[in-house]
Amino acid sequence: MKVAIFFGSKSDIDVMRGAANALKEYGVEYKAFILSAHRVPEKLEETIKQVENDGCQVIIAGAGLAAHLPGVIASQTILPVIGVPVKAALGGMDALLSIVQMPKAIPVATVGINNSYNAGMLAVQMLSIQDNVIKTKLLEARANMKKRFIEENGEGVEL
Amino acid sequence: MKVAIFFGSKSDIDVMRGAANALKEYGVEYKAFILSAHRVPEKLEETIKQVENDGCQVIIAGAGLAAHLPGVIASQTILPVIGVPVKAALGGMDALLSIVQMPKAIPVATVGINNSYNAGMLAVQMLSIQDNVIKTKLLEARANMKKRFIEENGEGVEL
Amino acid sequence: MKVAIFFGSKSDIDVMRGAANALKEYGVEYKAFILSAHRVPEKLEETIKQVENDGCQVIIAGAGLAAHLPGVIASQTILPVIGVPVKAALGGMDALLSIVQMPKAIPVATVGINNSYNAGMLAVQMLSIQDNVIKTKLLEARANMKKRFIEENGEGVEL
Amino acid sequence: MKVAIFFGSKSDIDVMRGAANALKEYGVEYKAFILSAHRVPEKLEETIKQVENDGCQVIIAGAGLAAHLPGVIASQTILPVIGVPVKAALGGMDALLSIVQMPKAIPVATVGINNSYNAGMLAVQMLSIQDNVIKTKLLEARANMKKRFIEENGEGVEL
Amino acid sequence: MKVAIFFGSKSDIDVMRGAANALKEYGVEYKAFILSAHRVPEKLEETIKQVENDGCQVIIAGAGLAAHLPGVIASQTILPVIGVPVKAALGGMDALLSIVQMPKAIPVATVGINNSYNAGMLAVQMLSIQDNVIKTKLLEARANMKKRFIEENGEGVEL
Amino acid sequence: MKVAIFFGSKSDIDVMRGAANALKEYGVEYKAFILSAHRVPEKLEETIKQVENDGCQVIIAGAGLAAHLPGVIASQTILPVIGVPVKAALGGMDALLSIVQMPKAIPVATVGINNSYNAGMLAVQMLSIQDNVIKTKLLEARANMKKRFIEENGEGVEL
Amino acid sequence: MKVAIFFGSKSDIDVMRGAANALKEYGVEYKAFILSAHRVPEKLEETIKQVENDGCQVIIAGAGLAAHLPGVIASQTILPVIGVPVKAALGGMDALLSIVQMPKAIPVATVGINNSYNAGMLAVQMLSIQDNVIKTKLLEARANMKKRFIEENGEGVEL
Amino acid sequence: MKVAIFFGSKSDIDVMRGAANALKEYGVEYKAFILSAHRVPEKLEETIKQVENDGCQVIIAGAGLAAHLPGVIASQTILPVIGVPVKAALGGMDALLSIVQMPKAIPVATVGINNSYNAGMLAVQMLSIQDNVIKTKLLEARANMKKRFIEENGEGVEL
Repeated sequence: MKVAIFFGSKSDIDVMRGAANALKEYGVEYKAFILSAHRVPEKLEETIKQVENDGCQVIIAGAGLAAHLPGVIASQTILPVIGVPVKAALGGMDALLSIVQMPKAIPVATVGINNSYNAGMLAVQMLSIQDNVIKTKLLEARANMKKRFIEENGEGVEL
Repeated sequence: MKVAIFFGSKSDIDVMRGAANALKEYGVEYKAFILSAHRVPEKLEETIKQVENDGCQVIIAGAGLAAHLPGVIASQTILPVIGVPVKAALGGMDALLSIVQMPKAIPVATVGINNSYNAGMLAVQMLSIQDNVIKTKLLEARANMKKRFIEENGEGVEL
Repeated sequence: MKVAIFFGSKSDIDVMRGAANALKEYGVEYKAFILSAHRVPEKLEETIKQVENDGCQVIIAGAGLAAHLPGVIASQTILPVIGVPVKAALGGMDALLSIVQMPKAIPVATVGINNSYNAGMLAVQMLSIQDNVIKTKLLEARANMKKRFIEENGEGVEL
Repeated sequence: MKVAIFFGSKSDIDVMRGAANALKEYGVEYKAFILSAHRVPEKLEETIKQVENDGCQVIIAGAGLAAHLPGVIASQTILPVIGVPVKAALGGMDALLSIVQMPKAIPVATVGINNSYNAGMLAVQMLSIQDNVIKTKLLEARANMKKRFIEENGEGVEL
Repeated sequence: MKVAIFFGSKSDIDVMRGAANALKEYGVEYKAFILSAHRVPEKLEETIKQVENDGCQVIIAGAGLAAHLPGVIASQTILPVIGVPVKAALGGMDALLSIVQMPKAIPVATVGINNSYNAGMLAVQMLSIQDNVIKTKLLEARANMKKRFIEENGEGVEL
Repeated sequence: MKVAIFFGSKSDIDVMRGAANALKEYGVEYKAFILSAHRVPEKLEETIKQVENDGCQVIIAGAGLAAHLPGVIASQTILPVIGVPVKAALGGMDALLSIVQMPKAIPVATVGINNSYNAGMLAVQMLSIQDNVIKTKLLEARANMKKRFIEENGEGVEL
Repeated sequence: MKVAIFFGSKSDIDVMRGAANALKEYGVEYKAFILSAHRVPEKLEETIKQVENDGCQVIIAGAGLAAHLPGVIASQTILPVIGVPVKAALGGMDALLSIVQMPKAIPVATVGINNSYNAGMLAVQMLSIQDNVIKTKLLEARANMKKRFIEENGEGVEL
Repeated sequence: MKVAIFFGSKSDIDVMRGAANALKEYGVEYKAFILSAHRVPEKLEETIKQVENDGCQVIIAGAGLAAHLPGVIASQTILPVIGVPVKAALGGMDALLSIVQMPKAIPVATVGINNSYNAGMLAVQMLSIQDNVIKTKLLEARANMKKRFIEENGEGVEL
């Protein structure tokens, strides 16, 4: 397993699937866990240690409201932690601020509200630093995205 | 010790002193700790257990930015936890939302931005439920506040 | 009666039921009142006195918009008052700020927007200070919550 | 006395003086009171009755933070109540929302943040409905304001 | 006609009906006009003069988005102008700020977002200053509201 | 072609059609392109050059979220660029701020959230500076709008 | 005169000078007027007509708070109107929303908060549509800006 | 060079130095560039290619206002890009939203407002995935931070 995905409730599955999708596209092994910083802090701590032992290199964590999960994980590991603000109230602004405004030396790499696909992409990019296979896939995917975008949208559109 | 006050940095001392002041006014024993949910999570966990063993009945926690400290404490105790949003950015809105929007079953009793005096007062009120001496003091203080307010502000003011 | 629940309108019943649910789970007697700080201030004042006489130890108050009810109650009692911001406009931000930003010495213990269950939990925690039966139930419930959470979410989830 | 001005603290005097200035310009008698909805609710209630008996026709109330004063006054009188949001935190947004978002049937006529002069003007306009002397003064002042504005700013300005 | 109600579009009729309802309850004659500060400024100017000539004593104006209508009217009359922020985007925050933050000496008495009933009530209160019939009705209505509220909500509610 | 309309995705077509509608009403030739600053930056650059060569005089660009498209276009042309914030999250506030807060010397003429019709109108107004036919149409349209508005809304409305 | 600059108060001179500076850099004749939509609406109307008669082709208007000036001007002319939100309260958010959220068919081209230089630049860009001398200057200035930026900031900076 | 730091203006040097400090602490080679997405897009593009050729593995970009720099860089590279919202207006909220709300597949790893130290830390964490020397330093630093924190803050603090 290269990436561990954490989130706090079954109700976040639909939002967080995007992260898994991005990882699958690039052939990155991952494992997902429903764990809450507030409900099962000891199990969370234990699972962080376990995924580290299993070779995890990047952690993705999604949370809504007072979204502490990504920051709590970041306080217990030196792996890079990517945070996904999940929209549950106030348009997701509460989750965004609870995730991004971390104190000095304990960063969380925050992506857009509900944008877990980008969390997966960011994990892939981080892994590509040391992995030429992934790097090549990223370059190809970027090139394909451009090609497809231009094919689909052609030389102009009726409006 | 009846109340434990936690906050994350020496720079919060001035904001958090209000909580201590309220407790002193009502003769409530307290102890204060600088401890960070993100920097020293294990020491925080240990200290929560220690203050519980020392008879602590209410916990006050102040934090700024992605203010996780009150919520992380609340996840590790069943004592009532009072949260003080400390203004460090965005007028304190980030800290307020990070503290108040807790998930179901793990509440934090949130007071106003930088208003640690009210956190102290709330702890006093909670303790007064079982303590008639404090209850009497609260009633006297409320009566005195009213008397003093009226004396100071009289029957009208020049404007 | 240990806890009184106040709110301003029949339309708040669904949001406020969570507080009653939490109290029921812990066997805490409560009584609920629809009373408005703006529409029936005298009846509110009278009822606050009455619930105090009936042994009430904690007050929960929910309100939306310019949510004055919790603060007005807090000005008329020394019992701890817990405020629930009810979402009616602006995502509940108006109610949150109207409840949490109380002046010095008259605190309201604010919980998350529409999160009345947490208001009930907080009341239970306050009562547990003097009540070992409740304290034991809280510890058991916390342990059960953890156990159930882990059972339900297992050792990982398909994503 | 035609207008009563209420506010909660000596620290609001500078902000609230604008209301008095507007009233003076139009020769409207007023009286000012420092009274808090949260600290001295009974004295506030008593003073509202007293100013009604003294012939008060409009009430101005300024408050900051969880600014309940204008709304609490409005719940105890049928006189028109003008609210001034005083900036104390969050740029005054908390006070603005706490004042303007009143429930059905208990309005507060809200003016801009810290703009107590406009509260005074609004009171003058309300009184002018029944008072031709004030109406004439308002028309003259409006005409003079225009004349003076044009004289001062002339036919263009160097930039 | 005692009160003129202005708003900018047929789509605002449902929101603005509340103002008319309040006026009808108190037997206050009113007339309503769909007029836009931006689309028909000359017709607006002309209509303001006309309603003044017809004895209008208070103006109510509702608008959404960059809600200039109330302020533009206030710049053309010395009658008190009541502004209703109509929710069209951003939860109505744009309209609220565009209406309430008026410059010195040109106030708009602002009520809550979409709360046109309160605009009507405020107009009634302003008119009651000089009109004992309305004053008596307001006192009766307030008393009835209290009585009805208590009857409906009784001595407590099941939750 | 006088105006080029750019936007980042097929899902924006409905929002952006308003710009085309305004241009059609005034007989202004335009061409529309789906192009993304983030997905196909080179194609965007190329197309900007192409539309400049084809005589384009004004560019309209709509985008949501971190809406960089209008600003990126503005950095690559000296033609006036009009930005339309498209609502995709947070009520469109993210897009509004991402478009309007441009650095010194690289302006984007920003219109209201989702208000692409106004972007089209603004382009027409810019073109009218040098084109008396369009100027005449604008004056007629303004006059007709006034006439139609008054006809439709008559001398008052039932409420 | 090609451009007219309007703003509401002498206190805005420093903020609005940026617009004049941009116009001077490109040799565009302008005239500036202190005129308020709320204080001197008739004089404003008259001056708009006058600048139109004097050949004005673009109007720039700056305003703070409930910033109606740009929109009111736009309702009285078909010239393109550029709005500058001036920061006076709430960080300028009130002015931004009051300017940018205009109704359909009456656009205001809004620039960043206090960024009057960009308003000047935008006016220059609009005028360049019909003026090759200005167009050449814009291209040169853009090229010079790039050259100077690179010279000043070189091939990297010490940090 | 392992990390490239980009920002748009000399005035950002003080804010951005934190990123360099973090990199220095961990012995990570970096190079800093003042380059603007809006002023010198071609030079930016060229420099991105150059740093990629020089072995750069992570890019840090700081920007204020409509902060496009991080997103524009992310659109031109597959390296992970870390964005630092620089506070220039609205408390930095405009920059935060302009950076974090990126579209699908082009992520920017966003850190807190003005918190460039955390951007440096995040880069170090990303590099540590493939570099055991850095990993060991990170673990030591985390352990030292805990030790120092506890030494400095001891077993409690006077309040």
